[in-house]
Amino acid sequence: MASQNMVATVVAAAVSLLVGGIIGHLGTGTDTISSSDKEKISIMEKLVADKWESEEHLNHKIIDMINTDNLRNNLMELAKLPHLAGTERDHQLAHMIRDRFLEAGFDTADLVPYDVLLSRPNRTNPNLVTLEDVEGQIIFSSTYQEKPLHEDDSDPEFIHAFNAFTPAGDVRTEAGRGVVYVNYARVEDFDKLEELNVNVSGCIVIARYGKIFRGNKVLQAQERGAQGIILFSDPRDVALEGVEAQNVYPNTWWLPGSGMQRGTTYMGTGDSLTPGWPSTAQAYRLKVEDVQLPKIPCQPIGYDDARVILKKIGGTPAPSDDWKGGLTGVAYNLGPELQDRYSNYTLRLKTHNVLQIHRSYNVIGTIKGEVEPDRYVLLGNHRDAWGYGASDPSSGTAQMLETARVFGQLISSTGWRPRRTLVFCSWGAEEYGLIGSTEWVEENVNKLQERAVMYLNTDNCASGPAILIPSSPLLWEPVTRIMKMVPGVRDGATLYDEWMANNVAQNRTSPKMDTLGTSSDHAPFAFYCGIPCLNLMFKSIRNKYDITGYPFYHTGYDTFYMMDKHVDPGFRIQQGCGRIASLMLKYFADSLIIPYSLQHLPEAMKDALDTFKESGKRDKLMKICKKYVLLEESLANLTDTITVFVRKVKEKKTQNLDPVSIRAINDQMMKLEQVFILPAGLPGRPTVRHAVFAQSQFDNYAPARFPGISDLLYRIEELDAAERLEKEDEIRKHISDLTIMMERAASFLQDFHLI
Amino acid sequence: MASQNMVATVVAAAVSLLVGGIIGHLGTGTDTISSSDKEKISIMEKLVADKWESEEHLNHKIIDMINTDNLRNNLMELAKLPHLAGTERDHQLAHMIRDRFLEAGFDTADLVPYDVLLSRPNRTNPNLVTLEDVEGQIIFSSTYQEKPLHEDDSDPEFIHAFNAFTPAGDVRTEAGRGVVYVNYARVEDFDKLEELNVNVSGCIVIARYGKIFRGNKVLQAQERGAQGIILFSDPRDVALEGVEAQNVYPNTWWLPGSGMQRGTTYMGTGDSLTPGWPSTAQAYRLKVEDVQLPKIPCQPIGYDDARVILKKIGGTPAPSDDWKGGLTGVAYNLGPELQDRYSNYTLRLKTHNVLQIHRSYNVIGTIKGEVEPDRYVLLGNHRDAWGYGASDPSSGTAQMLETARVFGQLISSTGWRPRRTLVFCSWGAEEYGLIGSTEWVEENVNKLQERAVMYLNTDNCASGPAILIPSSPLLWEPVTRIMKMVPGVRDGATLYDEWMANNVAQNRTSPKMDTLGTSSDHAPFAFYCGIPCLNLMFKSIRNKYDITGYPFYHTGYDTFYMMDKHVDPGFRIQQGCGRIASLMLKYFADSLIIPYSLQHLPEAMKDALDTFKESGKRDKLMKICKKYVLLEESLANLTDTITVFVRKVKEKKTQNLDPVSIRAINDQMMKLEQVFILPAGLPGRPTVRHAVFAQSQFDNYAPARFPGISDLLYRIEELDAAERLEKEDEIRKHISDLTIMMERAASFLQDFHLI
Repeated sequence: MASQNMVATVVAAAVSLLVGGIIGHLGTGTDTISSSDKEKISIMEKLVADKWESEEHLNHKIIDMINTDNLRNNLMELAKLPHLAGTERDHQLAHMIRDRFLEAGFDTADLVPYDVLLSRPNRTNPNLVTLEDVEGQIIFSSTYQEKPLHEDDSDPEFIHAFNAFTPAGDVRTEAGRGVVYVNYARVEDFDKLEELNVNVSGCIVIARYGKIFRGNKVLQAQERGAQGIILFSDPRDVALEGVEAQNVYPNTWWLPGSGMQRGTTYMGTGDSLTPGWPSTAQAYRLKVEDVQLPKIPCQPIGYDDARVILKKIGGTPAPSDDWKGGLTGVAYNLGPELQDRYSNYTLRLKTHNVLQIHRSYNVIGTIKGEVEPDRYVLLGNHRDAWGYGASDPSSGTAQMLETARVFGQLISSTGWRPRRTLVFCSWGAEEYGLIGSTEWVEENVNKLQERAVMYLNTDNCASGPAILIPSSPLLWEPVTRIMKMVPGVRDGATLYDEWMANNVAQNRTSPKMDTLGTSSDHAPFAFYCGIPCLNLMFKSIRNKYDITGYPFYHTGYDTFYMMDKHVDPGFRIQQGCGRIASLMLKYFADSLIIPYSLQHLPEAMKDALDTFKESGKRDKLMKICKKYVLLEESLANLTDTITVFVRKVKEKKTQNLDPVSIRAINDQMMKLEQVFILPAGLPGRPTVRHAVFAQSQFDNYAPARFPGISDLLYRIEELDAAERLEKEDEIRKHISDLTIMMERAASFLQDFHLI
Repeated sequence: MASQNMVATVVAAAVSLLVGGIIGHLGTGTDTISSSDKEKISIMEKLVADKWESEEHLNHKIIDMINTDNLRNNLMELAKLPHLAGTERDHQLAHMIRDRFLEAGFDTADLVPYDVLLSRPNRTNPNLVTLEDVEGQIIFSSTYQEKPLHEDDSDPEFIHAFNAFTPAGDVRTEAGRGVVYVNYARVEDFDKLEELNVNVSGCIVIARYGKIFRGNKVLQAQERGAQGIILFSDPRDVALEGVEAQNVYPNTWWLPGSGMQRGTTYMGTGDSLTPGWPSTAQAYRLKVEDVQLPKIPCQPIGYDDARVILKKIGGTPAPSDDWKGGLTGVAYNLGPELQDRYSNYTLRLKTHNVLQIHRSYNVIGTIKGEVEPDRYVLLGNHRDAWGYGASDPSSGTAQMLETARVFGQLISSTGWRPRRTLVFCSWGAEEYGLIGSTEWVEENVNKLQERAVMYLNTDNCASGPAILIPSSPLLWEPVTRIMKMVPGVRDGATLYDEWMANNVAQNRTSPKMDTLGTSSDHAPFAFYCGIPCLNLMFKSIRNKYDITGYPFYHTGYDTFYMMDKHVDPGFRIQQGCGRIASLMLKYFADSLIIPYSLQHLPEAMKDALDTFKESGKRDKLMKICKKYVLLEESLANLTDTITVFVRKVKEKKTQNLDPVSIRAINDQMMKLEQVFILPAGLPGRPTVRHAVFAQSQFDNYAPARFPGISDLLYRIEELDAAERLEKEDEIRKHISDLTIMMERAASFLQDFHLI
């Protein structure tokens, strides 16, 4: 029946069209295709084309095109010489990357300069940690450069060990006392010391690297009254298979005894002289003395040197095994006394770091979108390194250059062009506190909040084989989909399989996405602007080694040889990284409806509130603020709203598509996370503006959910009555703000849409 | 030749289309119109239709439809009874307006409630200003309600005179001294008093209304140490043709002796308990004692009562005629002594105002846009009044109801529907500091910044015959165009002619647009969000009477009779208002490319910087900050960029239109002013965020350009050296911020667009 009717209808239509056609050409022309109609149809088809779905074959092409030889060559060039932020080599690489973008066929590629405050050691006067006797005779002096162990790490100009933004200083202990080993220098470590009556005030403290951001270590030491701090890499964290030559670099990826971790200690992000504003010629700059930089000298040393010092510490013994590192023959005593036989020894820390404004470049390259050039899909990675930076960041850059080449070739060989604009960013001075990316975001904040679809960060994409994808919940589903398309870099059929296996290995019962921390250049996009971000990286397999990061991090041994030989021989990891990055870019640039997974946003929030329940935080909060239940209710409301919205979007896809209403839907999704941006920032943190996902205040590396709540609850019990009442008021205010933002978000997805 | 070729081409095309058509229906169908192609063409045509241009006939229809009888009936109903914010009558009117929107055929019309802090006098215990003798015998007592002079102003429940948010208090002077007449209570008036050694500290001061916002008067008095302040309306400002019965209401529009101006004194905007956030159930509320409200009692009186007091003041004589008002037999002595024969008199000010949270409603009605429902063109007007509120605000509401009716009728009679969504807003509690609009903006800030095209405010649209259109420069050209379409309300052929004549009358050599102040509900849209706003009103002709505002402002005589008889007999002014409003709405809702006049934005800024030059401010600034020239350069750059952009938009209009790139262009223009929003507000003013156009800090009524500069320069010479250095640093910082915003704005119009 139906098919007979249909045939009849089609025939009738055909006749009517034919007749209409004849009449049209002789008469009013309503039913034929004029050239202007043809153009309308063609524009319309272009506007509503879903190139991601219709051009699936290109995805396989892209996967095939990401080439390991190219990656290897890129990395060899990038890691050939040290390229510290603002140095000649850093500038050379900026030009090289710009040229590569242009060669690839990009529409634009520009160097974007900023003049920013950096910190360097004094080349001719190295920072030293010494042991001296009462006559000032030097008994022991620390080294300040790694031992050259391989041709790849033998540049004589290699930068001395130092911690950026710690001051020049010269401090020393009393003879025979005043040295305290403070474990990881976390708040809880200092608390333990207090409990044990080991007073750090006026002492030089020595802490091992790991667990938290080094800036927090310095700050804690300073706040507890230490006069200086020495940071060292402990074999327990960096040489798990032994410290003998055959067990460390260049024979393995583990760190030798002279390896020293450099790194910044500034607690903010961006150029400290221009918070909130770009460091351009127009910019007003704070006076250096008005900037919150560490006030006590600090110096990193290797474990060979640390051993010498630690062995001499007596006093209180380590309270538990948690306090003991992996140095054999060292008791990890806490001090503050030295052992009796060293009672005439003084520990001295003398640093000569210099603060100076340097020029730093970002390189910004674009491939213009053909339908929505004003929508940006961004890929970024920093360029500057503490040394050769083969893994950090050049593995990411090697990948970015290859991704750029592949897109260029796609354009020239297939005529493809993205619907939305692709933006490639090589950031300067990330190592000094995300400076290049932050300044650029501060310069372009309006454009980015208005137009950015997604920012994908890679940084040191390869420091191990296990894929990690901390990201905005809006990207969880899409990145999962892409991982399923990409071959595995180890034993898995796909990267998704490997990611799942890694989840299982970590005893995660369900696959779990990670929340973003501040560790790299996505932070200003995510936490200042509310743009959905993904920080793609391959790290060591967590269950295999219980370590923070990777052993050669920020040392002189982050070399091409290290990558080529130990970390990514065959360059399959960097290939995996390039494949994920390029497909994610294309997915977000070419899909008609931007493929965010909205539903994961309230899920992640719910998960966070559930955690509050489990940890007892909810009970605490309820005692302070009955309205906490309204926050839960508003979240439930948002969840329902998103469920309805997502369903409507799915229905929309099956209807006749109208490009303006598609754009409206995309706008709603794209700017949803921005609803959670607090214009003036989190309580006490003007540049951290994301109320739901941002770093914790007490460890700049660590992610947090509802960071304002955690920050405000932090140690509230220890406050005196008046301070506590004030803090409780702040909590009530913040919970109210969060609740209203939930309501705003729900409302942002309702009203005047999808009807 | 050409035409022969064309014929041949057309014939060939016709044949080929016909053949194609046949083949199409039997085979591949490339050249006939399938129903799906038809739909594409029809969607496309709808998406790129400029309904403003193609439906010009509707404009005449609209002009004809705005009906004076309807306006008169609307006003009669609205002004029948007093309708103070949060009272039963206010709520009744909210429901009435909602119903009228629905009757007109709106898609939605809702009451939106907020619970906000309001201030009222104590009904049973009126505020009094008394003169007492040493025994406490009352010699004179002020009235607290206007004398009923006409049936329209005879409601026995009419609210007593008071100034909102001033505290309850009971203060009195010493016998025979302690009363100071302070002219308009401006900064310069108090300075003059100081110069004359008239000390106001501990005194009750008496000031005439006018020139500046009354809140600034109270604040100045408080800061100068006065213990109380009495405000009165002087005949010089409100009864220019004499105070005799035949020269004042109900016989003229001038104010009788018992007319008292009510009004708020709160210096902020919105509910003072929830700055930056909406006063919903979820909201955290400040404690009242933590809010910056006036600390000294204050009371308004009429000039009959003022005369009694002023006549008794002796002491220093008025320094000049500028200090003398229009009360006959009054010398306008300054005090602080009373004249000798009143040396045993005490002046006492006793107020009983009560702070309480009340419910206030906004009414929000919408007509959904058919192409871009997510773009809002808004018309707003408050509803609450200090009394009958016939002019303020009901003349605006009468107009809004008529405009709503006309749009409804347009839809039902012609099938027209706007491209973008129209939003009609009736605000509550404006008189208490723009509360309804501010809370709504705070609740919907994300949606508004993302989607609002334009906000048109009317308030008391008719208080005189001369059109005034202070607005964002982006609206100058469009409102000019509309004024040229609308018949004049007086002698001019069009409103434009009348506006021009008014300019000439004010000795303005070129037609001049005014900058927005904070006087009404556009303020949160303009100054918090950066949305282009227009505050439409008809006021008294400036050259005719040199007065601030209009005489019956905020008194018991703002009645229907006043409007019907004196201010707008025949309702042609309100008709003009309705015509401008409805055409502006349609212009912005229906134009394909939003008709902003971008070029006027840098012009207005240039004009402001030129004023700095003329006033010597530039020299001052250059001494403090050499980089001031960069601000000028960046403005020149922005000017050039806008010139190019505007030209490209014009070219674009002649090309084949693609609806997505049209939307992109509109987005750029729509959000341009937002680039000048400082997230954390102007220095020291978190809710005033527009860096270029905002009210002055020292007169809440008065507009300013680059208000941050003026505020920071204010009295800088009088600071001590350390404070001055700090202030100069703030100036350098602010100039840098402004310069960077100029650069951001230029960049916002470049990159990835119009190519």
